[in-house]
Amino acid sequence: KLKEEGIIHRVKIHEVRADKHIELGPFKLEMIGLTHSIPEMQAIAIRTDAGIVMHTGDWKLDEAPMVGPVTDEARLKQYGDEGVLAMVCDSTNVMVEGESGSESHVRQNLAEVIGACENRVLVTTFASNISRLESILYAARDAGRSVGLAGKSLWRITDAAKQAGYLKDVPPFLSDHEAMKLPKDKCLIVCTGCQGESRAALTKIAQQEHPAIRLSPKDTVIFSSRMIPGNESRIGWMQNKLTTLGLEIISDRDGFIHVSGHPCRGELERMYKLVRPQIAIPVHGEARHIHEHAKFAQSLGVSETIEATNGAVIELKKGETPRVVGMVEWGYTAMDGTSLIDTNSIVLRTRRKLRDAGCVVLSMVIDKKGKVVGQPQISGPGTLDPAADQHIITMIQKETAHEIEKIIESKKERMIDERMRGIMRRILNAEIGKKPVLDIHIHQL
Amino acid sequence: KLKEEGIIHRVKIHEVRADKHIELGPFKLEMIGLTHSIPEMQAIAIRTDAGIVMHTGDWKLDEAPMVGPVTDEARLKQYGDEGVLAMVCDSTNVMVEGESGSESHVRQNLAEVIGACENRVLVTTFASNISRLESILYAARDAGRSVGLAGKSLWRITDAAKQAGYLKDVPPFLSDHEAMKLPKDKCLIVCTGCQGESRAALTKIAQQEHPAIRLSPKDTVIFSSRMIPGNESRIGWMQNKLTTLGLEIISDRDGFIHVSGHPCRGELERMYKLVRPQIAIPVHGEARHIHEHAKFAQSLGVSETIEATNGAVIELKKGETPRVVGMVEWGYTAMDGTSLIDTNSIVLRTRRKLRDAGCVVLSMVIDKKGKVVGQPQISGPGTLDPAADQHIITMIQKETAHEIEKIIESKKERMIDERMRGIMRRILNAEIGKKPVLDIHIHQL
Repeated sequence: KLKEEGIIHRVKIHEVRADKHIELGPFKLEMIGLTHSIPEMQAIAIRTDAGIVMHTGDWKLDEAPMVGPVTDEARLKQYGDEGVLAMVCDSTNVMVEGESGSESHVRQNLAEVIGACENRVLVTTFASNISRLESILYAARDAGRSVGLAGKSLWRITDAAKQAGYLKDVPPFLSDHEAMKLPKDKCLIVCTGCQGESRAALTKIAQQEHPAIRLSPKDTVIFSSRMIPGNESRIGWMQNKLTTLGLEIISDRDGFIHVSGHPCRGELERMYKLVRPQIAIPVHGEARHIHEHAKFAQSLGVSETIEATNGAVIELKKGETPRVVGMVEWGYTAMDGTSLIDTNSIVLRTRRKLRDAGCVVLSMVIDKKGKVVGQPQISGPGTLDPAADQHIITMIQKETAHEIEKIIESKKERMIDERMRGIMRRILNAEIGKKPVLDIHIHQL
Repeated sequence: KLKEEGIIHRVKIHEVRADKHIELGPFKLEMIGLTHSIPEMQAIAIRTDAGIVMHTGDWKLDEAPMVGPVTDEARLKQYGDEGVLAMVCDSTNVMVEGESGSESHVRQNLAEVIGACENRVLVTTFASNISRLESILYAARDAGRSVGLAGKSLWRITDAAKQAGYLKDVPPFLSDHEAMKLPKDKCLIVCTGCQGESRAALTKIAQQEHPAIRLSPKDTVIFSSRMIPGNESRIGWMQNKLTTLGLEIISDRDGFIHVSGHPCRGELERMYKLVRPQIAIPVHGEARHIHEHAKFAQSLGVSETIEATNGAVIELKKGETPRVVGMVEWGYTAMDGTSLIDTNSIVLRTRRKLRDAGCVVLSMVIDKKGKVVGQPQISGPGTLDPAADQHIITMIQKETAHEIEKIIESKKERMIDERMRGIMRRILNAEIGKKPVLDIHIHQL
């Protein structure tokens, strides 16, 4: 990714072996292998003077993750036996009872679902999920289908996976163009866009704007993914588009063809029983998930929990209630054109106003005697309808011209801007009930 | 609603008794009582020269709807025996197996959930759901809590329900101000906003902007509702806000405290077995629901289905495949200020551009000799940062002034607008990578 963005030289990369201990300032770190939808995920046990902090990162428990090792529960338990001060732990699925389930079951089911398809098959999933990709590739092989990839991140991930020794056992991937030349029943295309991302392959396919892929009625699109909260509307929109094209859609609602990479309550319970921390610090979730996780940790016998927001600096001391002692600055920056800007900058604040009400521009020329030359010019992009609102333009022209001459006569030039705005605001509000951004250019000769 | 909007005099209202037959042009209509989350819902059997068309409207099957009569299955079956040409039917829950469930179970569960609360209780639900309101009121009574209402639509609906003979058995409602004066454990407030609507009571409470209601930590907010697809993000946002205030949230995920008003597959199957239409016309749903419903109807033995979009005019003939023979204009209009406008009007299209990139305004004065007087003025609301982008303003000023004098000298005035835009576009794209709306005012003396 750094290479693609051309900034690889600006970043120093420290490669770390999962089986080595690391010293970082006053901390001693040990990595402990966990399962997740990305292989080789590591929890970090941080040994400090105040005690041990276990940071789980993203994780789940899967006895048969298909790619990468299983969770090192023995080592987690050893830490639990030694005594862990605090555990920082994934809250994503704390609202879900039971277990997240195993990739091995998904693999079986995907093979069945893909085996039953007759025409072209498209499968979309999270590109980083190497074991899922492998599941799809094996299912394609069993169904006698060759596999094409559509979407840059899939090529990047599969290259990286092969370099790391995964996906060894599969034939080379076809490009999307090559895959489209296959007979329909010999073709499977893995594509990006399971969340309806606006520039991803599947979204372009749904809009019939993809450079290589045009699907036909009775082709099947398989969503081996879940809807991430917040993306429901755009995924629904895309699925409607695909349906309108006559395609069959199969999603995790129709069968167990996706499994979460995050722990459900059963797995959280097992983790708390292994690590037995004195303090629980729920992370990775919104306020309601953090809160539910804190309650759940208490129900599992954790004596102290703290519900902290992003950026919170938490003080941990053995036997004491943890507390927030500071805040680190955090937040989003926006890419606007080619610049990074603050999401609360004047530029973006103005743009929100422009979105809601458009803008009205007034320009006029004043001669040396303080008289308006010609007519004031008025335009109203996003506010005024040139066909319907001419009378408003005329009203503003007359009133502002009259008023500015009066102001200059009484030598109150510093009032010009405010008075012009007042007139425009009043007329626009009375006539069409709008409050646009106002912009005024006065040329004094 | 018409009264509130002051347009009751503009609309002619025909009151119709549910037990009467109606003649409407060439059609004979009979209403058949169904259950739904609104009492007294009616299917309409439309008798035409070509055969009978059954239009279900919104419905479900509930043997114990608590308010209003149960579905008249006998009459539906009589129509089935007579022979129904086509059924126009609700697709909302066609993706959901089984039955939607009964309000009677929700009533029991709500009583338990509310009975277990200790501090203040807020319940939000769909205002039109009279039986749910009654369930909440009975639960409040059993728990020794008085009930306040927050939200205009709740007052409107409960008034209407009382006028129609429902909600007889309950004490008068308190205002939100009165309810807040009760001891916490004697207070229950029903409020609008279960979908996170921006101006509804619960949203204002979450933002701590409600004029009467301020909740305290350990108060409980009960969502006796479901997330309507498309509203997940704003409901999640609101629930996070409420959690941050220390409130406990109970939703349909925590127990069976909401039931859908639309038929799941089990109920659809029963309806198709009663009515046995020759043609299925799925409605009420997005493309993927319509498609799934058509497939499901076929699996139930319906010989013809048609998947039509909004506005489609469908020709129905006995023994023939139904087809779309025309389109009726339909769509949204937007309220912009005080005017109704087309969502694809130039005003709204411009506003989308303004939202994405802002606008840059250039004005300049040209004297009689074709020379620029003073400096061109440039402003860039939503595009240029006055602090950072002064060099861009200077560049545009210089280039446009130089160019316009050249154009006038070579008597190509009609090129002015295009050339000025070209310069601005090029500089803005090269310097900051933005493509704003451009607005140009030229004053020629």
